[in-house]
Amino acid sequence: MAPYQSFRRRNYSVQLKTFMSVYKDRVEELFPSVINSSEMPRKLKESMLYSLEAGGKRVRPLLVYAVLDTYGISAEKADKTACAIEFIHTYSLIHDDLPAMDDDDIRRGRPTNHRVYGEACAVLAGDALLTQSFQLIAGDKLLSADKKVDIIAAVSEASGAPGMVGGQLDDMEAEGREVDVEELEYIHARKTGALLSVALQAGAVIAGAPEEEQRALEAFGKHIGLSFQIKDDLLDVEGEESEIGKPVGSDESNDKNTYVRLLGADGAREKLDYHTSMALAELERVSGNTEVLKELTAYISERTK
Amino acid sequence: MAPYQSFRRRNYSVQLKTFMSVYKDRVEELFPSVINSSEMPRKLKESMLYSLEAGGKRVRPLLVYAVLDTYGISAEKADKTACAIEFIHTYSLIHDDLPAMDDDDIRRGRPTNHRVYGEACAVLAGDALLTQSFQLIAGDKLLSADKKVDIIAAVSEASGAPGMVGGQLDDMEAEGREVDVEELEYIHARKTGALLSVALQAGAVIAGAPEEEQRALEAFGKHIGLSFQIKDDLLDVEGEESEIGKPVGSDESNDKNTYVRLLGADGAREKLDYHTSMALAELERVSGNTEVLKELTAYISERTK
Repeated sequence: MAPYQSFRRRNYSVQLKTFMSVYKDRVEELFPSVINSSEMPRKLKESMLYSLEAGGKRVRPLLVYAVLDTYGISAEKADKTACAIEFIHTYSLIHDDLPAMDDDDIRRGRPTNHRVYGEACAVLAGDALLTQSFQLIAGDKLLSADKKVDIIAAVSEASGAPGMVGGQLDDMEAEGREVDVEELEYIHARKTGALLSVALQAGAVIAGAPEEEQRALEAFGKHIGLSFQIKDDLLDVEGEESEIGKPVGSDESNDKNTYVRLLGADGAREKLDYHTSMALAELERVSGNTEVLKELTAYISERTK
Repeated sequence: MAPYQSFRRRNYSVQLKTFMSVYKDRVEELFPSVINSSEMPRKLKESMLYSLEAGGKRVRPLLVYAVLDTYGISAEKADKTACAIEFIHTYSLIHDDLPAMDDDDIRRGRPTNHRVYGEACAVLAGDALLTQSFQLIAGDKLLSADKKVDIIAAVSEASGAPGMVGGQLDDMEAEGREVDVEELEYIHARKTGALLSVALQAGAVIAGAPEEEQRALEAFGKHIGLSFQIKDDLLDVEGEESEIGKPVGSDESNDKNTYVRLLGADGAREKLDYHTSMALAELERVSGNTEVLKELTAYISERTK
């Protein structure tokens, strides 16, 4: 049995399900109070909350909380940072959906932000969420100034031109052009990996983890970031297979570069297994109870949506 | 002679011209080195630099440097913050020019960012500049963590939903609808005033100014922010008068709400004079040598472009 298969057949535990449910609720409860604490035009507020409250797994906040759980630190200290990182993820979805970008009308079963509030408001709601994320961290009363500066430095680098924004541009520019696995990995390491990775790094800063453990958690984040993307690509095909019986890789009209397209479904599964193993290896360098992080790693490679 | 007239006929000095020229060059020289210090897609880099290097008076950086000059603090300490605030101003121009927003093809005599690089890249260049502004401040090696957090908190509030972004949305929503002077002032206090004001506040934090002087400089900033906007509105009309001989207020087809439209040119000049006087009164509460700030106040209300 291949290592991936053995890992895949493991069920993630009741512990993880509880953890995910508790902390998803926790961060979602922060959104309205954070947004309502600022004076702003009503339409802007509605538009920001519309996208914040569209649902989702809240993986990035969960990763921040999971690191605090690892070190046995009170979750309260991570609230503002977890919220801020989800704000950044949400802003990126709003801007990515714009007509000039991916031109998507539907996200998570609901009309996209610009379809409801108009393009101008959607651009501004994204801008406002990004800006408020840094205001949230800077205004956190539970963290020292040194920690806040470290978190802001890491989060801004991961989400800006060297990270998420640069990855998004490269991804769009690569559409319709054949890329190799190395380039695809470089795109996704920035487009989705950087923000996932910085969620762990931020958690490590908050927890006051030793420098080498911060590096290990960051490296762990890079691997699960890639696992996350590969699994997304696999789910697209697996979804197609089960739902409409279309054979894997038949959709040649799709211009998107995916792991499945480049490596085939089996190759992509091998790659997923590789990054999952590497992620778990990094966790060996982390003290404390890494059970939840391990379970999240399993969840990322096993999830069905 | 009305107070405004006497103020208006004063020439700003050689000292101010030198100050403006020296610090405009100083901040502009930072742009390429800051952008080139980050790894990012070449197109994104070019697009960010294209808008950063489009020129302009660099009023916001000048205000930061002017506060340091007031307190006799080395300008070096303001470099990153001055640069960051100009990044935010530049991002706001790129996004405001987008087809979905003001739909402008030309800015400062050159095609707007999205006309050169496309809409998707323009959205991302704006996002990247905004994000990098916080990275710049967080990474400043010359400031304490406490000061950096204070600056990031102030700058993010001023440029986000409660400030610039909210003002921009309200301004667009008010187009084609009659507003009163109070509402117009509320819009402009956020759309343009907040970022001008926070430039002074940030300078005060860097200089370590006493709390009450920080408040005075912030209030000074709010008044010159409004002066700046009123003067912009007046310049539009004065430009028309001298260039094409069109009488003041004749352009009824213009949907934009302006001070001149609401108050007439004389009423707008009175309002400009009021805010200029209030700004100068706030400076009386500031210790140190406020000569450059006074001259900048005069410049803002007297400039011819």
